[in-house]
Amino acid sequence: MPTDPQTRSDDELLGQFRARKRLALARAISIVENTRPGFQRLLHELHTEQGNAQRIGLTGPPGAGKSTLTSRLAAEFRKLDEQVGIVAVDPSSPFTGGALLGDRIRMNNISTDPGVFIRSMAARGSLGGLATTTNEVADLMDAYGCARVLLETVGVGQSELEIAGAADTTVVVLVPESGDSIQAMKAGLMEIADVFVINKADRPGADRLAQEIEVMLHMRLGDGSPAAAGHHGVSMRSVGKAARERSRAVAEEQGAWAIPVIKTVGQSGEGIDELVRTLDRHAVYLRESGELSRRRQARLAERVRAVVERQLKMLAWVDGRGEEMLEEALPALESGAESPYTVAARIVRAMGLETP
Amino acid sequence: MPTDPQTRSDDELLGQFRARKRLALARAISIVENTRPGFQRLLHELHTEQGNAQRIGLTGPPGAGKSTLTSRLAAEFRKLDEQVGIVAVDPSSPFTGGALLGDRIRMNNISTDPGVFIRSMAARGSLGGLATTTNEVADLMDAYGCARVLLETVGVGQSELEIAGAADTTVVVLVPESGDSIQAMKAGLMEIADVFVINKADRPGADRLAQEIEVMLHMRLGDGSPAAAGHHGVSMRSVGKAARERSRAVAEEQGAWAIPVIKTVGQSGEGIDELVRTLDRHAVYLRESGELSRRRQARLAERVRAVVERQLKMLAWVDGRGEEMLEEALPALESGAESPYTVAARIVRAMGLETP
Repeated sequence: MPTDPQTRSDDELLGQFRARKRLALARAISIVENTRPGFQRLLHELHTEQGNAQRIGLTGPPGAGKSTLTSRLAAEFRKLDEQVGIVAVDPSSPFTGGALLGDRIRMNNISTDPGVFIRSMAARGSLGGLATTTNEVADLMDAYGCARVLLETVGVGQSELEIAGAADTTVVVLVPESGDSIQAMKAGLMEIADVFVINKADRPGADRLAQEIEVMLHMRLGDGSPAAAGHHGVSMRSVGKAARERSRAVAEEQGAWAIPVIKTVGQSGEGIDELVRTLDRHAVYLRESGELSRRRQARLAERVRAVVERQLKMLAWVDGRGEEMLEEALPALESGAESPYTVAARIVRAMGLETP
Repeated sequence: MPTDPQTRSDDELLGQFRARKRLALARAISIVENTRPGFQRLLHELHTEQGNAQRIGLTGPPGAGKSTLTSRLAAEFRKLDEQVGIVAVDPSSPFTGGALLGDRIRMNNISTDPGVFIRSMAARGSLGGLATTTNEVADLMDAYGCARVLLETVGVGQSELEIAGAADTTVVVLVPESGDSIQAMKAGLMEIADVFVINKADRPGADRLAQEIEVMLHMRLGDGSPAAAGHHGVSMRSVGKAARERSRAVAEEQGAWAIPVIKTVGQSGEGIDELVRTLDRHAVYLRESGELSRRRQARLAERVRAVVERQLKMLAWVDGRGEEMLEEALPALESGAESPYTVAARIVRAMGLETP
C-alpha cells in the first residue's frame, strides 16, 4: 500500500529524530511551533517517549537575571553530561525579537555546545496559545533525550506564570530591587514557586527580601492566609525566626516540601551549586511524594483541553469559512445592523453546530 | 404568545438598565462576568447603545501608581459631570483578591460617588478569556452612559497589554525606578502607548526617563527601527533635542499623533490636568483622523473571533460531553496508552465535527 508523501516525510523525520539527529529536533520544533501539517501526529508518535526530563520553569520580573541563571544552570548540567533543552519565552514585542537569545548566546559558550538545545519563542499569533506550544516544544526536547528542560519566561503576567508553573519545578527569581515582597505576591509568584531564588544577592537588601519571603512562606504554612495578614497590616517582622524554623521542620517531617529561599549571584556563579542540589532534591521529592504524578496528570488533562480548543479554532478559522464570513459581516457590524453575537452565532452554525 | 421566564427576566433587566438603575448595571455586569444564561442576548441587545464612551487603558509595571492615577482621573471627569466606569483587572492570584480595589476605595472618595462605577476583575477560570470579558464589561458601562471607561491592568504580561491596548486610548504609566527605557520596550509597551506618563515624577531620574522615551519615539518615527539602534549599541543621547522636536513637529503637521510624554505626581495631583487635556486631545485626534473607526473595526472583528471561540469552548466543555470523556480517558493518558492528541480528536468528533 503506497503512503502519501506527507506521511512518508513525517516517518523519515521521526526516524532521524529517534536516531538523535540534531537537525531533526530543530525541524520537529519548527513544525510544532508553526502548527504545520503533521504536527499533531508527530507529537502523538513521540508522546510515550517523553516524561524523563526534569522540566524547570524560571520566572520573575524583567531584569532579575533569569537568562544568566539559565545559562549557569545549563553549564552545570553539562558538567554532569546531561543534555539540556532551553525554551526562552519572550512574550513581548517584535521590537525585541531575539535580543534575549542574543544575550544568552554570548554567555558561557553554551550555544556552541552540541549538548544544549536553545529555542526562543515569541508570543504573537499562535493559534494554539503560547503555553501549549511551549509545552509541546518541551515535550520534543524531552523525547529527544534532554535530561533537563529549562523554561524561561520573561515578564510577570498571568500567561508567563502559567508557562513557568506548568514545569515540574518552578523557580521564581527575584532581586533585592524587586521591591517589597508584597509585590511578588501580587504578581501571583507565591502560588507557583517551588524554589525562590534571590539573585544579585551581593546587592543591598538581599537578606531583608529573603527574610520577608521566609515570613510569608511561614504564614502560608500557618493559617494558610498570608494575604489576610498583609491586608490587616500585620508586620512581616512580627513572626520570629524560631517560629519560622519550627514550621519548616514540621513541614519536612510531614513529607511536605518546605520552599527554600536561595541566594545566588548569577554573574559570579555563587549559589548555583546550591540551586542545582535543590533542584535535584525537588526532583526526588516530586517522585517520592507522588506529586510528580499528580502534576503530570493535571498537565495531561490541561493539554487535552488545549488541543481540543486549538482544533476547534482551526476548524473555525483555517478549514472553515469563519474568516470569510467575518469579512462579509464587517460593514453590518460597523453600521450596527449586526452585533458580534449574531455574527459569531452564524459562524458557529456554519460549522454544523448548534449555538449554545 | 407566552414568553419563558428567562426571557421575561432578561427584558425586565434591560428595562431597568435603560432606565439607568444602578443596580441593573451591577446585575448585568455579573451576568456577563459569569457567562450566566442570557449574557449574550443582553450584550447583543445593548450593542447599538454603546460606542459613546472614551475607553482609556492604563497599564504599566506594578507599583507605578496606576490606581492612584485612575482615581485622580475619575475625580477630574466627575468635575465635568461625566459618569465614569472603572474596570480594574487584577490578573494575579486569589491571595490579592480585592486588595487593589480596597486601595482605590480609600482614595478620593470616588467609591461613594454615585456617578462612578467600579468593577474589579480576576483572571482565573474565565471561559471567554479575560480580555473579552473585560471589554464586554466596558461595553455595558458604555451603554449605561459612562462618558469615560478606565481600564486599569496590573502587570506587564502580554494579556495585560492586550487588555489595555484594546482601549481607544492607551496610557502607559512608568516611574523613574522603572529602570532604563529599554525594559519598557521589552515589555512591548512602546507598541501600544498613545500617551506615556511618568508618574512619581518628583523622584530622581524622571527627566532622564522622559528624555530616553522621547529619543526612542523619535527613532521610531525616523527609520521605524528603534530596536536596531538599541541592538547596535547606539547611544540614546546621540539623538539631539532639536532633531526630536523637529520630528515631532513633522508628525503633527502630517496629522499624525506625536506620542506625548507627561510627568505626573499622582499623590499630589500634579500633571493630572495636562493628562486630562491630552486624553481629550487624543479623543479628538481619533475621531478626526478616522483612527477611531479603524480601531473600533479591528475590535469588532476581534470580538467576533473571541465570541466564536467562547461558544466553541462552551459546546465542548459545558454543553458537550468533553469533560466527561476527558475524565474517562485519564487512566489511559497516564499509562501512555493514549496521547492527548487521540483523546482530543475523539472529543472533537463527538461534537459532530471532522478533526483537522
